[in-house]
Amino acid sequence: MGEKFQSLPGFRDFYPEDCAVRNYVFDHWRAVAHRYNFHEYEGPLLEPSELYKKKSGDEILQQLFHFEDRGERSVAMRPELTPTLARMAVARQRDYRKPIRWFSIGQFFRYEKRQKGRGREFYQLNVDILGEASEVADAELIAFAIDLMLDLGFAAGDFIIRLSNRDAWIDFMQNESIPQEKLQDFLQVIDKMEREKPELTEKKLNALGSSRQAVDNFITSNAAEKHFTSIMTDLKARNLANHVTIDLGVVRGLAYYTGTVFEVFDSSKSMRAVAGGGRYDELCGLIGGNSSSMPACGFAMGDVVITDLIKETKKANARLLNYLGNTSATDIQVIIADEANRQQALASIQQLRNAGFRVNYSMTASKVGKQFTQAEHAKARVAVIIGSEFPEITIKDLAQRREQKAEAGEILEMVRTILATEPEGPLIA
Amino acid sequence: MGEKFQSLPGFRDFYPEDCAVRNYVFDHWRAVAHRYNFHEYEGPLLEPSELYKKKSGDEILQQLFHFEDRGERSVAMRPELTPTLARMAVARQRDYRKPIRWFSIGQFFRYEKRQKGRGREFYQLNVDILGEASEVADAELIAFAIDLMLDLGFAAGDFIIRLSNRDAWIDFMQNESIPQEKLQDFLQVIDKMEREKPELTEKKLNALGSSRQAVDNFITSNAAEKHFTSIMTDLKARNLANHVTIDLGVVRGLAYYTGTVFEVFDSSKSMRAVAGGGRYDELCGLIGGNSSSMPACGFAMGDVVITDLIKETKKANARLLNYLGNTSATDIQVIIADEANRQQALASIQQLRNAGFRVNYSMTASKVGKQFTQAEHAKARVAVIIGSEFPEITIKDLAQRREQKAEAGEILEMVRTILATEPEGPLIA
Repeated sequence: MGEKFQSLPGFRDFYPEDCAVRNYVFDHWRAVAHRYNFHEYEGPLLEPSELYKKKSGDEILQQLFHFEDRGERSVAMRPELTPTLARMAVARQRDYRKPIRWFSIGQFFRYEKRQKGRGREFYQLNVDILGEASEVADAELIAFAIDLMLDLGFAAGDFIIRLSNRDAWIDFMQNESIPQEKLQDFLQVIDKMEREKPELTEKKLNALGSSRQAVDNFITSNAAEKHFTSIMTDLKARNLANHVTIDLGVVRGLAYYTGTVFEVFDSSKSMRAVAGGGRYDELCGLIGGNSSSMPACGFAMGDVVITDLIKETKKANARLLNYLGNTSATDIQVIIADEANRQQALASIQQLRNAGFRVNYSMTASKVGKQFTQAEHAKARVAVIIGSEFPEITIKDLAQRREQKAEAGEILEMVRTILATEPEGPLIA
Repeated sequence: MGEKFQSLPGFRDFYPEDCAVRNYVFDHWRAVAHRYNFHEYEGPLLEPSELYKKKSGDEILQQLFHFEDRGERSVAMRPELTPTLARMAVARQRDYRKPIRWFSIGQFFRYEKRQKGRGREFYQLNVDILGEASEVADAELIAFAIDLMLDLGFAAGDFIIRLSNRDAWIDFMQNESIPQEKLQDFLQVIDKMEREKPELTEKKLNALGSSRQAVDNFITSNAAEKHFTSIMTDLKARNLANHVTIDLGVVRGLAYYTGTVFEVFDSSKSMRAVAGGGRYDELCGLIGGNSSSMPACGFAMGDVVITDLIKETKKANARLLNYLGNTSATDIQVIIADEANRQQALASIQQLRNAGFRVNYSMTASKVGKQFTQAEHAKARVAVIIGSEFPEITIKDLAQRREQKAEAGEILEMVRTILATEPEGPLIA
């Protein structure tokens, strides 16, 4: 009989304690998007496979959950949102004033090889500005990313924005007489340079008609400075420039970027990209045809790396723990000290819930001591004890360990007063 | 070039105005779950197909998006949450105090035949209590459902809870000497009775050894009353019983229900089920084996019918429109009247956003009149005008059409004061 079911490898179960952590991240994503006046949207989780092939070629299918549906359509569980965004924005381009400022929070799927820390689903924040060619939009997104990190409790030493621009490398290729059609190949070499053996990089660059020496010289020179002047001036005005470093070694993997690219980088010991994005001025035209062409830029942040980083970083983790303490705690435990008065207790429970309070109670008859234990586990601030002396009831502030007698009609006001005052001591754990 | 991509049939794009409606429903689902002290969880969107076959037999696959993944597993995009919940609860049964009070908001997928109003994906609220056999739990869920409807702005005439109990039909079958192994067949007949031709129902009931007359007599008699006494007493104590009608004709389609079943029914002209649920005491044992057996009850509400009903119901729709007005409006438009002072404007924008305000501004140089139009479209309450006379700036309450001069250092406090006061007249549309 007892067949055991398990979840699929790479897919997460979010038990309440995990779901609260997820919601903490979502709440911050939404809060900063709100301040920056972005509007939330969402697309389908299943899209025609063609939408991804168009952008990334057939190889992309190797990394997707894709299949033929019962209507013989080739469909894929979405691995990212940008193609969907481009499809949606292009389809109703005339209905929205430019610049379009949209964000989304959703789930994505990739059939990754099994390895530590690599799931097959993840949540992602996507933030995009469409219809604005100026680098002011790029700066607005970088400022958003910085403010998000600060809001989560990270400080200057915890993270850095690595800012780059693909146009700088186009300049370089021109100087080195590398043909422009080699751009993607060349950027691939730069992208891998940090993690690859120097001899291999040298070999690849030689094949393209350049060298590590030339690349290194370019990176350390000021030759590319002009590409960053306007963004850095903007971020300085916002007093955020100290969180940014120019790093031409960052080019981002995706083929569709043009111009600015950047990543939020974990600058503590684990050195991971936490988020990344850039300008992709050609994607809307590619998806919707030339007449739909629209400049665009955006960035995305996944939930996995940022959650790890929050947990590893003292101040960020303290904020998380504070949130978890608040969201898991109930306001009031109604204690039914005499089963004969369960109806009266239910009336009070309803009244308190109607007033917006979070109320817990024992659904079955049980001893008062056991109900107080339940109050403790529910982290209730107040106990309302309804016993045989009803309509006289007892209201207990569990944080202050003070109790008062009251009439049933006074419960709401007395509870409201207690909940409006900060407890002097620590709450019962 | 201009190949047009479209979303798959039955899948929705949520543009910002649609996403805000979705979020309105989600916010209410979460708010009531909070008051009732339920904790949020979430499971995977992809599960082994076996999980659904176990519960509903092989035919269920006809209605699923299911496929073989690259690891040759038979997998399905989840059509409902209850099997996942049972799997999760059973796996960590000992880690959680009973009763478990969990809720979830997520997306589900069914490969339905194309027809009006039937999508292939939908969102659903799931609310469940596990580990509590008493009907107090059933009453708690029904109260939750009623409070949710009231919270959304529905009144007594708009909806009704149709309450039933499968045990009543087991009594009936005993009286009529219908063998117990015919239970599912019999319930199917009762479930379809409302929509089916009377002659067909009669024929089916005759085949089972009963008749429409016997069924009708049973429904209109008080024979089943004992099954509802405790739930109705509980709901009366909460002053919610007037929203409930006992209706034995409701049995709910799913095979796994035992005991109480109920649905939230749109009692206006369109007569649809808005939500439904009941007790399923055997499912945990079925999923996890006999040793995992645990009483359980729950209900689910989809987003599609409730959203239609909100839009069709005057008071509910007014609440929605009020929410949409608030969420789409920005607090402040910073107007850059002199491009030479863009840096100063950015500093103010940053300061206002740091204080938690929602701030919009023009990313490119444009005429002041055009920026005021932008403020109007963004539904900004306040305009902060930064021009050549900086550090003197102008702050305009766009609702009251009043303006004041100020120093740059005073912006934050003045804006705070304006935003803390309700406008006397209507906001600019």
